[in-house]
Amino acid sequence: MIEDTAAVLHGPRDVRIGAVARDAVRPGQVRVEIRGVGLCGSDLHYFADGRNGSNVVSQPTVLGHEGFGVITETGPGVPADRIGERVAIEPAAPCLRCPTCLAGRYNVCPHGTCLGSPPTHGLLRASAVLPAQFAHPLPDSVPDAVASLVEPLAVACWAVDRVSPLAGRRVLVTGAGPIGLATLQAALAEGAAEVVVSDVVESRLRAASDLGATVVVVAGEGDVEPVDVALECSGSAAALKTAANSLRPGGVLGLVGVHSGAEAVFPVQLLQRWELDVRGCFRYGPGAFRTAISWLARARVDLAPLVTARFPLAESARALELALADRSQLKVVIDGSKGNS
Amino acid sequence: MIEDTAAVLHGPRDVRIGAVARDAVRPGQVRVEIRGVGLCGSDLHYFADGRNGSNVVSQPTVLGHEGFGVITETGPGVPADRIGERVAIEPAAPCLRCPTCLAGRYNVCPHGTCLGSPPTHGLLRASAVLPAQFAHPLPDSVPDAVASLVEPLAVACWAVDRVSPLAGRRVLVTGAGPIGLATLQAALAEGAAEVVVSDVVESRLRAASDLGATVVVVAGEGDVEPVDVALECSGSAAALKTAANSLRPGGVLGLVGVHSGAEAVFPVQLLQRWELDVRGCFRYGPGAFRTAISWLARARVDLAPLVTARFPLAESARALELALADRSQLKVVIDGSKGNS
Amino acid sequence: MIEDTAAVLHGPRDVRIGAVARDAVRPGQVRVEIRGVGLCGSDLHYFADGRNGSNVVSQPTVLGHEGFGVITETGPGVPADRIGERVAIEPAAPCLRCPTCLAGRYNVCPHGTCLGSPPTHGLLRASAVLPAQFAHPLPDSVPDAVASLVEPLAVACWAVDRVSPLAGRRVLVTGAGPIGLATLQAALAEGAAEVVVSDVVESRLRAASDLGATVVVVAGEGDVEPVDVALECSGSAAALKTAANSLRPGGVLGLVGVHSGAEAVFPVQLLQRWELDVRGCFRYGPGAFRTAISWLARARVDLAPLVTARFPLAESARALELALADRSQLKVVIDGSKGNS
Amino acid sequence: MIEDTAAVLHGPRDVRIGAVARDAVRPGQVRVEIRGVGLCGSDLHYFADGRNGSNVVSQPTVLGHEGFGVITETGPGVPADRIGERVAIEPAAPCLRCPTCLAGRYNVCPHGTCLGSPPTHGLLRASAVLPAQFAHPLPDSVPDAVASLVEPLAVACWAVDRVSPLAGRRVLVTGAGPIGLATLQAALAEGAAEVVVSDVVESRLRAASDLGATVVVVAGEGDVEPVDVALECSGSAAALKTAANSLRPGGVLGLVGVHSGAEAVFPVQLLQRWELDVRGCFRYGPGAFRTAISWLARARVDLAPLVTARFPLAESARALELALADRSQLKVVIDGSKGNS
Repeated sequence: MIEDTAAVLHGPRDVRIGAVARDAVRPGQVRVEIRGVGLCGSDLHYFADGRNGSNVVSQPTVLGHEGFGVITETGPGVPADRIGERVAIEPAAPCLRCPTCLAGRYNVCPHGTCLGSPPTHGLLRASAVLPAQFAHPLPDSVPDAVASLVEPLAVACWAVDRVSPLAGRRVLVTGAGPIGLATLQAALAEGAAEVVVSDVVESRLRAASDLGATVVVVAGEGDVEPVDVALECSGSAAALKTAANSLRPGGVLGLVGVHSGAEAVFPVQLLQRWELDVRGCFRYGPGAFRTAISWLARARVDLAPLVTARFPLAESARALELALADRSQLKVVIDGSKGNS
Repeated sequence: MIEDTAAVLHGPRDVRIGAVARDAVRPGQVRVEIRGVGLCGSDLHYFADGRNGSNVVSQPTVLGHEGFGVITETGPGVPADRIGERVAIEPAAPCLRCPTCLAGRYNVCPHGTCLGSPPTHGLLRASAVLPAQFAHPLPDSVPDAVASLVEPLAVACWAVDRVSPLAGRRVLVTGAGPIGLATLQAALAEGAAEVVVSDVVESRLRAASDLGATVVVVAGEGDVEPVDVALECSGSAAALKTAANSLRPGGVLGLVGVHSGAEAVFPVQLLQRWELDVRGCFRYGPGAFRTAISWLARARVDLAPLVTARFPLAESARALELALADRSQLKVVIDGSKGNS
Repeated sequence: MIEDTAAVLHGPRDVRIGAVARDAVRPGQVRVEIRGVGLCGSDLHYFADGRNGSNVVSQPTVLGHEGFGVITETGPGVPADRIGERVAIEPAAPCLRCPTCLAGRYNVCPHGTCLGSPPTHGLLRASAVLPAQFAHPLPDSVPDAVASLVEPLAVACWAVDRVSPLAGRRVLVTGAGPIGLATLQAALAEGAAEVVVSDVVESRLRAASDLGATVVVVAGEGDVEPVDVALECSGSAAALKTAANSLRPGGVLGLVGVHSGAEAVFPVQLLQRWELDVRGCFRYGPGAFRTAISWLARARVDLAPLVTARFPLAESARALELALADRSQLKVVIDGSKGNS
Repeated sequence: MIEDTAAVLHGPRDVRIGAVARDAVRPGQVRVEIRGVGLCGSDLHYFADGRNGSNVVSQPTVLGHEGFGVITETGPGVPADRIGERVAIEPAAPCLRCPTCLAGRYNVCPHGTCLGSPPTHGLLRASAVLPAQFAHPLPDSVPDAVASLVEPLAVACWAVDRVSPLAGRRVLVTGAGPIGLATLQAALAEGAAEVVVSDVVESRLRAASDLGATVVVVAGEGDVEPVDVALECSGSAAALKTAANSLRPGGVLGLVGVHSGAEAVFPVQLLQRWELDVRGCFRYGPGAFRTAISWLARARVDLAPLVTARFPLAESARALELALADRSQLKVVIDGSKGNS
C-alpha cells in the first residue's frame, strides 16, 4: 500500500504527522500533489473541540479543504496532458445524479461529501484524489503565495452571486475575517457602489479600509445607513440583527458566516413588512471557482494581505495552535513539500 | 361638505355608524361606491385592541381594505366611460416615484399609504377614492358574493409569485385560515404537484381537503415529508419552524402570515447548510390583482366556501364581534348598500 | 450476443424489423423493456429524408425517443427494487461533468447524446439502457395509453418553464400539433389567464378549443390582440413573425417548434424598442419530466385526445408512412410487445 | 412668454439657433439649466435625414437627450433645497401608472415620451423641465467634462444589467463606438473575466484595448472563441450573426445597437439547439443612472477618452456636421452657457 505523509487529527488539540493510504485514481479523477493549504475556521473547530457543529470527529482524520497543487496522475477518461497542471481544488464531491445536482445546485447535494469534512480526509497530506472537473487550472498570473486562497475567495464569489445583482448597490459586510475581506472585494468586483464593513477588531477594519471598503464601522457602535444588500460573514447573532435591520425595502441578506448555534433570532416583522429576502450561502456552486480565479488572475482582488503566517506541513500542529490563539491572524497557510522549498 | 355613511372605529370594541367627509376625486383618481367588504385579521386587531403591531389607532378611523364596488365618478385624465364599471379595490397608494416604486416594488414603497390602515380611512363606508389604476375591472363571471375576496386572493397570488416557480413542486401551506386556503388554491393554480396543508383546527383542514389539498396534517403531530416550497400563512412561531424544517435542499420559504411579535427564531444553520431562501411577502405587487381576477373569472379557484357570514354595513360592529369570537368563521363579509338590498 | 427485436431505419422510407445488439447495463444504469413509443416530427424527418436538420443517418439506426416501459435490470449502484417499476424515459445522456451540466443546463450539454438521435439507437426496440435518474417512475394514475406522451408533455413543461411566470398572463401558442396542444395545456396548468392558439388546420384548432384555448385563430387571418408571452410551436417563419409582433412591451417569445432552415427573419427593431426576450427551448431540462408526470397523474392535462392511431412494433413502417401522409394525425403511437397484447 | 435659446432642427441638415418657449415647472418637476449635451447617433439620424427609424421630424424640434445641468427651479412637492444641485438628466417621461410601469419596466412604457425624441424638445437649449426623480444628483467627483456622458454610460449599465450576471464570464462586445466602449467598461465593472471587442475601425479597437478589452478583433476576420454573453452594440446585421454564432450553450445575446432596418436574420436553429437567449435593450431602466454615476464617481470607468470634440451651443450645426462626417469622432459634446465660459 502506498502512503502519503499527512497531518492527522487524532483528537482535540492532537494533530500529528503520520501517513495515510493513497486513494486510487478512478475514472474521471485526478491525483493532485498538494502545494499549499489554508486553515479555515472549521478546521480550527475540529482541532479545538473535535467537532464542528453537529459533525464529530470519530476517527483519525486529515483536515484541510482550501488547497492547490499540481496534477500528477489522471484516471481513465481524463486527458493525460493535464498532468503537470497547477490547479485550485474544489473539495466537494456531489453525486451529480440527484434532482438537486441536476438542477445546478450541486453544492447542496444531500449525498455529497467534501475533502476535509470528517470522516473524509482533507488536504493536509502529500496528495489527494478528486473529480477532474473540480481541479481548476490556475494561470501563471496567480502566484503560489495566494493560490490556496482561491477556495475562500470562491466562497465570497458564490455569496455575492447568491445576492446579486450588486451593480451600483450599497452593500454591508458584517465581519472582516478572511471571508468578510474576500466578500468585500468580491462585492466591489461585481460593481457594488459602496461597501460598508463592520467588525469588532480594529486591525480588521483597517484591513477592510485598505482593501476598498468605503466606510468601516465598529460593530455595535452607531447605526449603519440603509443598504440594498447585506452579507453576514461573522456568524454572530448580533451581526445578523444589525444586517437585517440595515436593509432597505426589498433588500437582500446573505448568510455567509457559519453560526455556532442551530437557531438564531430574526426580525420577522421587518422581513415581512419590507419583503426582505434571506438567502443561505453554502460553499460554492457552479462557476464560483472560475470567477475567483479570473478575478485573481487579473488583479481585481488582492488576497496577499490576508495571509498572515506560513508553516511547513510538518508544523501543522503549531500552525493550528497559532491560528486558534492569535485573533490578529487572518489566514494561516500550510505550504506543501514543493511550495516549501 | 358631502358626507358618506361609515362604520367608524372610535376605540377598542367601539365601532359606530356615523358619517365621514367624502374625499374629492383628484386627477387620475376614481370614486368607487362600495358594494362589499371582507373583514381581515388586521381589522380584528384594530377592533379588539385599538392597534395592529406597532400601528396604534389615535383618531376615529374607518376600517376595511378588502372591497369592491362600482365607479361613480372619474377624475381628470380618467376616461369617463369607466363610470359604471364594477371593480375590485387594490387599497395601496404608493408614491410611484421613489426608487422602490420605479423598480417595480411599489408594495413596499416607504412613502405609501393604504386604505384602512389607520389613520387612512378604509372601505366600510359609502364610497372611497383611489388611483384609477388600482380599481381593477371585474368581469361578469365574478359574482358579487365573492368579489370582496379578490383582495385576499391577491395576497395569495402574490405570495406564490414570490416563491415561484411551483410547477410540479411539492408545497407546504401552514395555516388554513382564509389566506392559507386562498394560498393553497393559488399554489394549485400555478401548477404545484402536491400541496400539504397543516393547521390546528380540524374544520379548516376539512375545508383544505375540499379545496384540493393532497394531504392535510394536524400541526405539531408527526412530520411532514420534505417539500420544495413552504408558505407560512399562520403567523405562528411554531409553524415557522415546521415550515423551515420541512424544506429540501435549495427550498424556499415564503412568510405570508403576519407575526404578532417583532422577532422569531429561525433554524439558521439549516438555512445555511441547505441554502434555503426566506422571502417576506407583503400585500400584493404588480399583477397580483390581475391574476386573482383571471383565476376567479375562469373558476380556477373557488372562494365561495370561504365566506361564512354576511352582514349589512349597519351591523358592522356585530360582524366584527362575531369574527373575533367565533374561530370557525373564515371570512365575514359586510355588504354595501346595493349588495344589501 | 443477446439481441433485441427492433424497427431499423436503413435509409429514406426504408424501415425494417430486425435485431440489434442489447446494450450492457453499466453502473448507475437500468434496462427498460419498452412498452410504447410515440412518433415525433424528427422521426418523420429521418424516415422521409434520411436526415433531420444537419444530422444525417449514415448507418442503420433505431428511431424513437418518446417512450415508456418497465425496468427489468439494474446496474451496480441502482437499488434492485426498482425492477418492475413502470417508467417514462428521458432519452438524454448528458456528460454531467462539464460546466454546462454543472450549472443545471444538462439539456444543452455539448457532449451529450440522445436515444433515437442517429447514430444513437432509439426506443423502437425491445429494450433500452439509460441512466437510472432518467427513468422516471410513473404512478398508476397515468395509464399506458398516454404514457409514451410524457416526453412531448415534458417538452411543453420545459417550454413554459423557460418563459415563466405565466400566472395571470395572456399567452399565444402558434401551431396546434402535438407539441402546441401540450404547450397550450401546460400554459393553463401554470396559471395562464388566457391562451390564444393559432394554426392553419381547422381540426387542430377544434382540438385546441376542446382542450381549453380561450381563443383560436386561423393563422394569417386577422390580428392577435397583444399577449404577454408567445410560444412558437410550429417551426414556421410566418408564425414566428406573428408571435413576435403580438407581444406587449417586455414580452417573452419561446422558440419551441424546430425550424427547418438554419436562419429566420426576426423583427429586430421591435425586439429592441420593447425589450422583448427571445428564448430558445431545447427538449427538457431539470424537473420537466417530474412536472409532466405530476400533471398527468392529477389530470391537470389530458393527452388522450392527442393519440390518433396505434400500431404494433412490427408495423412501424406503416405507422411512419401514415404519420407522414396524413396531416390530420396528431400522435401515432407504437405499442411494445406487452402493451400490444 | 419666457423663451430659452436653443439649437432648433428645422429639417435635414438645417439646425439654427433660435428660441423656444420655456416649459412651466409642474408639481413633482424641476427645471434644469443645461450645462452640457452629448450628441448621439439618433441625433445624427434626425439631423441628416429628418427621421430616425419610423419617427419623422414634422415640426421644428430641439434635439439632444444626453445631458447634465443644474437645478434652478423646483415644482410643488419637490424640496426647494434641490436648487443648485448638479444633475445628470434621465430624459424619459413614462406614465408611471400603466401595468408596464408598475411592474418596474418604465423604460418600455407604451405611453411615455422622451426629451429629444421629436416632437418632444430635447436638451440643446438653455433649460429643460423634467420629473424630479429623473434629475440624478452628481457628486463632485464626476467632472463637468464627462457629466453629459452619464446617459450613454447608463445605456451600457442597463445593457449589462439585462444580460447579467457577468461575474467571471467571457463577454463579446461587437462595435466599439461610444456605446460599445462604455459597454466594454460596464462589463468589466460588473466582473466579467474577459471582454473581447470587435469593430471594423482600427482606431476604435485601439481605444478598446486602452480601456481594458482583453482581446480585440477586426470584425469579419477570423473566428471569435466562444463566449458566455454577447452584447451587440453596432446595429449591424453582420455583427449580429457573429455575436449569436459566438455563444456557448445557454449563452445570452443583448441587442444594444439600434438597427436601421426593421428586420434582421437570426440563426434560429442555433438559438433553439443551444437555448440561447436574445434580449432587447432599450435606453435604461430602474437604477441604471445610479449605477452609472456610482461607477464614474469612483473611477471604475473612464469616459474622458470618449470625448473627441467640444463645441459651444451656438455652433451646434457645425458640431453635428463634424459628428456626421468624421468617423474617427467618438463623442462630440455641446457645452451649455456656463460650461462654456
